[in-house]
Amino acid sequence: MATLKDIEVAAAINILSALAFFVAFAILRLQPVNDRVYFPKWYLKGLRSSPLNCGAFAAKFVNLDFKSYIRFLNWMPAALQMPEPELIDHAGLDSAVYLRIYLVGLKIFVPIAFLAFAIMVPVNWTNGTLEHSKLAYSDIDKLSISNIPIGSQRFWTHLIMAYVFTFWTCYVLKKEYEIVASMRLHFLASEDRRPDQFTMVGYTAKVISNWVVTINGIFHQVLVRNVPPDPDESVNELVEHFFLVNHPEHYLTHQVVYNANKLSELVKEKKKVQNWLDYYKIKYSRNQSKRPSSKTGFLGMCGEKVDAIDFNTSKIEKLSEEIASERERIISNHKSIMPAAFVSFKTRWGAAVCAQTQQSRNPTMWLTEWAPEPRDVYWDNLAIPYVSLSIRRLIVAVAFFFLAFCFMIPIAFVQSLANIEDIEKVLPFLKPIIEMKGIKSFIQGFLPGIALKIFLIFLPSILMLMSKFEGFICISALERRSATRYYIFQFINVFLGSIITGTAFQQLNNFIHQSANEIPKTIGVSIPMKATFFITYIMVDGWAGVAGEILRLKPLIIYHLKNFFLVKTEKDREEAMDPGTLGFNTGEPQIQLYFLLGLVYAVVTPILLPFIIVFFGLAYVVYRHQIINVYNQEYESAAAFWPDVHVRIIVALIVSQLLVMGLLSTKQAAQSTPLLIALPVLTISFHFFCKGRYEPAFIRYPLQEAMMKDTLERAKEPNMNLKGFLQNAYMHPVFNSGDDSESDAASENGDQEPRLVPTKRQSRRNTPLPSKHSGSVSTLPEAVQDHALLL
Amino acid sequence: MATLKDIEVAAAINILSALAFFVAFAILRLQPVNDRVYFPKWYLKGLRSSPLNCGAFAAKFVNLDFKSYIRFLNWMPAALQMPEPELIDHAGLDSAVYLRIYLVGLKIFVPIAFLAFAIMVPVNWTNGTLEHSKLAYSDIDKLSISNIPIGSQRFWTHLIMAYVFTFWTCYVLKKEYEIVASMRLHFLASEDRRPDQFTMVGYTAKVISNWVVTINGIFHQVLVRNVPPDPDESVNELVEHFFLVNHPEHYLTHQVVYNANKLSELVKEKKKVQNWLDYYKIKYSRNQSKRPSSKTGFLGMCGEKVDAIDFNTSKIEKLSEEIASERERIISNHKSIMPAAFVSFKTRWGAAVCAQTQQSRNPTMWLTEWAPEPRDVYWDNLAIPYVSLSIRRLIVAVAFFFLAFCFMIPIAFVQSLANIEDIEKVLPFLKPIIEMKGIKSFIQGFLPGIALKIFLIFLPSILMLMSKFEGFICISALERRSATRYYIFQFINVFLGSIITGTAFQQLNNFIHQSANEIPKTIGVSIPMKATFFITYIMVDGWAGVAGEILRLKPLIIYHLKNFFLVKTEKDREEAMDPGTLGFNTGEPQIQLYFLLGLVYAVVTPILLPFIIVFFGLAYVVYRHQIINVYNQEYESAAAFWPDVHVRIIVALIVSQLLVMGLLSTKQAAQSTPLLIALPVLTISFHFFCKGRYEPAFIRYPLQEAMMKDTLERAKEPNMNLKGFLQNAYMHPVFNSGDDSESDAASENGDQEPRLVPTKRQSRRNTPLPSKHSGSVSTLPEAVQDHALLL
Repeated sequence: MATLKDIEVAAAINILSALAFFVAFAILRLQPVNDRVYFPKWYLKGLRSSPLNCGAFAAKFVNLDFKSYIRFLNWMPAALQMPEPELIDHAGLDSAVYLRIYLVGLKIFVPIAFLAFAIMVPVNWTNGTLEHSKLAYSDIDKLSISNIPIGSQRFWTHLIMAYVFTFWTCYVLKKEYEIVASMRLHFLASEDRRPDQFTMVGYTAKVISNWVVTINGIFHQVLVRNVPPDPDESVNELVEHFFLVNHPEHYLTHQVVYNANKLSELVKEKKKVQNWLDYYKIKYSRNQSKRPSSKTGFLGMCGEKVDAIDFNTSKIEKLSEEIASERERIISNHKSIMPAAFVSFKTRWGAAVCAQTQQSRNPTMWLTEWAPEPRDVYWDNLAIPYVSLSIRRLIVAVAFFFLAFCFMIPIAFVQSLANIEDIEKVLPFLKPIIEMKGIKSFIQGFLPGIALKIFLIFLPSILMLMSKFEGFICISALERRSATRYYIFQFINVFLGSIITGTAFQQLNNFIHQSANEIPKTIGVSIPMKATFFITYIMVDGWAGVAGEILRLKPLIIYHLKNFFLVKTEKDREEAMDPGTLGFNTGEPQIQLYFLLGLVYAVVTPILLPFIIVFFGLAYVVYRHQIINVYNQEYESAAAFWPDVHVRIIVALIVSQLLVMGLLSTKQAAQSTPLLIALPVLTISFHFFCKGRYEPAFIRYPLQEAMMKDTLERAKEPNMNLKGFLQNAYMHPVFNSGDDSESDAASENGDQEPRLVPTKRQSRRNTPLPSKHSGSVSTLPEAVQDHALLL
Repeated sequence: MATLKDIEVAAAINILSALAFFVAFAILRLQPVNDRVYFPKWYLKGLRSSPLNCGAFAAKFVNLDFKSYIRFLNWMPAALQMPEPELIDHAGLDSAVYLRIYLVGLKIFVPIAFLAFAIMVPVNWTNGTLEHSKLAYSDIDKLSISNIPIGSQRFWTHLIMAYVFTFWTCYVLKKEYEIVASMRLHFLASEDRRPDQFTMVGYTAKVISNWVVTINGIFHQVLVRNVPPDPDESVNELVEHFFLVNHPEHYLTHQVVYNANKLSELVKEKKKVQNWLDYYKIKYSRNQSKRPSSKTGFLGMCGEKVDAIDFNTSKIEKLSEEIASERERIISNHKSIMPAAFVSFKTRWGAAVCAQTQQSRNPTMWLTEWAPEPRDVYWDNLAIPYVSLSIRRLIVAVAFFFLAFCFMIPIAFVQSLANIEDIEKVLPFLKPIIEMKGIKSFIQGFLPGIALKIFLIFLPSILMLMSKFEGFICISALERRSATRYYIFQFINVFLGSIITGTAFQQLNNFIHQSANEIPKTIGVSIPMKATFFITYIMVDGWAGVAGEILRLKPLIIYHLKNFFLVKTEKDREEAMDPGTLGFNTGEPQIQLYFLLGLVYAVVTPILLPFIIVFFGLAYVVYRHQIINVYNQEYESAAAFWPDVHVRIIVALIVSQLLVMGLLSTKQAAQSTPLLIALPVLTISFHFFCKGRYEPAFIRYPLQEAMMKDTLERAKEPNMNLKGFLQNAYMHPVFNSGDDSESDAASENGDQEPRLVPTKRQSRRNTPLPSKHSGSVSTLPEAVQDHALLL
């Protein structure tokens, strides 16, 4: 068991490494050459231009103003300065509310820590149980519940504290739910949402006003799925007739959804060729003496040698033709229309009504819901029929069960394959190399671990794939579901796995063979013993990990590598600058683990709390900085994830109560058990109260609000031509992105015409290709004008 | 253990007693004097008049036509003859669908029984395990799974059969859900619902057409609750303004809800006095020589002697005045208006929209839902605020937990109080009486049991009280929730209690201390041994019990007692005729117990199945007869209970699968366990499929349907004055029932004016007083005309 000394050493190491990260960050971010890595958000907003274009040669790459190095931590107050409303404008509500999760952590744990240190630490410390016992114990344990003799009356303190902590947590949760719900409603209602939060450059006043109309138009849009097949009418006609009949006073127009997978591939191909063409053109312009040539075969390595510029130009022409014909084919062919459509309504009221009601006698047909933001739509899943959905859900549930509990089995199998003796047998010629001492120990120590490591790296992608297979229709929902699964995985394999050592499957087996009241006891008893382990975990993962986050080592290296080897054009450089996103599907479950640890150890070993508070504080500052300067959200769900955050903290609370109950019952403080049973019951009923009171704000859109907005809108802009803007708000992104280059070129001409430049934002690594473009021009009026003929 | 012989004897006894009941019924029902007990439904419909008014004196009371006794079972084919659509017209959809539960039982178990007897009985029988073992066994056990040697390959039969039975049950359930859902939608949609199914006498053609409008008007009505308090506006104004603003094109009118508890008491009092007055008038008219007199004191036993007719007449006058002033006070006083209202819409579409959407930003305010049928409203609960609702739900949940698991504790306490020695000590003067031999053994044998018996008799009322406290706003929901709780109670205390003997609390204690996979084993192993017990149970409760039901012994006795002692007027006689209702809250859980037994024993001891099939068949015929001739439903929920029925059969299926799994795992047929785990997973996912596919039909009203009906209605009756009829459809019943006597008198005048007579239906024993009247005149146009001035 670790002593206080060990903890001190570990703390020192981690604090030092965190400091080292901060210093490195302070130095690196001041170098102009790294500017695009540390401030990509401002580039995307068009508020910062490349420092490489001006000044002395050395100053282009290295910051020589040494004064600026002295204030190496001054990004921290800067990050905290931006007020919340501005932050919402700057980065969207999702990011602002995400930061509130850390604040909730501070709000919950700071008072709890004070109380615990004022009351429980003295109560625990002034016992002599461990001193008189012959057990090995550490100073940490003297501060914990282990130091209290069995059957002592002092357990009443812990019992009362469990109540106090529960009530405080619930109070904070309720307040926060209330605030977030009202923030969401306010965000949805505010008309003056500036389009710049959608990160575009080069727009003019007129475009902005159009944009605002389109954005507000989202509340006039409903997504209808599972349009039943009809032998006589096309989906297009069917949708129109259905809504004309059933919402006669409110229906405005609709857009059908095309199955554009092939088109999307062609567009991707064209973009690649276009890039090469640009590259060769630049090359030729630098060296006019020799026209660049390339080979037609695999990766330009083999095959016939051709003139690169001509070859690529002709290729682009061919692709353009193909794209045009494919586009024609999709639009003319009824088979490429999916049985789903985005329906626009004249009023928000009409849309709110349609989204919340059942349309047809068969509840699996004509499913309506709020249309997600255009950027948020996951196009591939729009056409999954109801029966298939239930089967997919079942398959994914079973698959996740096996993933969570049996993931060690295939990994152990791979590890056994990576056995040195086996490798030597199969590939005997490697024997001399393997037998070398350094390499052998490397393989033995590294190979078995690497299979697990690879699995853990790919886990979020696997979970995301599962969610996609399950059929959610927007990216935000995909991420929310993945986050839930990731949390469960972490709960089983990190939390329980660390407390009861053994694989998840062994645990499951144990739990099945244990009685219902033995399980909390088993875990509860092990908890105080694992406190030092978790303290170390918090310092490594929470302190140093968060400090490492701000350094952005991976994007930094990748950016410079790309910049050095691959960047051919300015556009490439922009694409090499990967701002990334918050990553709700992995970030939130990580925070939740700290909530779980904090709540579980609050009563048992309060010494853990300060470490958690430091994590929450540090992470809040770091992520606030990152959100302001780096991350670029792909979509805006208006904090739709908060109910998930809330319910997971509630789960952590209930787990902590059950474990304290199990622990106390082994301490022969039996009189406390009935009193402790009341806690989870109260917590669950608090959860249901909150669910009924606040959750509807995240699912529905009250008619009163809709009507108010409608009235306002009518009064303000009585002649607004909604139809024109709504008609093409929801285009499959490939219909727009095919024109990337042209619109790009047009925007460079400046004020010639009010056109919009598509954003250059990169998709996150684990989102699929179509969604990569969904953030770009899909809702732009420019696209509207271009594609008005498509419908 | 019971042998086949024992079962035969028990069967003979029960068949004989069932036959005896049938013979007794055949004789009793033919006596004119019992006519009102066995055919009350036809009296209420006005299609049968009292046979006492005509014919010879003897023939008035005894049927002397001996031929009619011969065909003593001919009520059975008669009961089966009425086709289902006519039955729906005659008794409502609730009753017709209730009968379908028995049919589902037959559909599930007849093919299962055939398969089981064809395949599993031979497989079980042809083993010699029990013969070679030294265990005591019976012939029944030879047919069961116990006869198969441990680890035998024959268990594959049971495994496959478990799959076959599951698939068959799911198939039947799905089909049935589909049929019931479409029956419900058809029922709600059909315009030609004849008012006679609402059991009134004395209406004319014009009244009927008004009635139809009112009934159909239900689909224009929405109940809004939790109207927020407003300092400036009354609830009345508030509701009007809110809906005029937020549903401007659809809002028609509304009715506020009055808190009329005091009025309701006064009306009750007046009715009682009126009855006495009638009695004395009859008495005086028979014996003109002496004016009847009564005493003013307690129960007319003591106090001043007064002239009865004068005294009661003046009392009625006083009460009438009080009622009028109280009514005035309620209507004029804003405090007696509850924050709830019935809102009428111009179109069904508007009402459907309002019922399915969230109105205000705060989801706990302006709660809207479909207005229940006027007869179905439970007025007392209309004004419960949201926070109170969550607290009530928590309290009831905790209370029910203790009721289900700890109900034996207070009963044991009462039983210990009823100890003879204690009674002798406390009341020594009773000693000589108690010490008499007969009485002593009677007390010893009877008193302890009577506490339990009384509790079990009152259990449905206790559960109903719980549901009322929980705040449901319609009687049908109260009954559904009570049925759920009664089912859980029966599952724990009858099913589990019989298998693992011991009180529920001991079981709970055992289960907590047992591991999750031990529980199905413990129960599974005991199951085959309890087959004979359950066979006897089925015969006593299912066969003889159902046969006893048709005899209506209790209502018969009560009717004749009342008729002899209490009946003073013709009206009294009508009230003494208590038709009763189906009693969903106790009847359905009883059926579900048979589903549970059938599904559990289908694989284990198939010999039980024929007994269950006989129960379902017999009960179907008996209850069909009762529904046609006796029961008079209090409300019509349009089969809203079917999702509950469905889910409980699913639960029974899953329980049976888990128990078979537990049983087989003790038989060392371990290879079967993984295959059996798939079954509950599939069943649960089937449940979710059905829930998504069919349940919305029981909760929502599709807009397509509403629009279709609106269009039809407009085309048919373009000038219908909906407002006039809807304005007073939902009056608190006391506002109408105060005029009982007057409207009664008016109706006796005949065709003078098209007025309606209130129904004379009795309330069920365990519903509260206000609902007693809710079936009467509340929706009648007559009431509308009378009380138009009240608003």
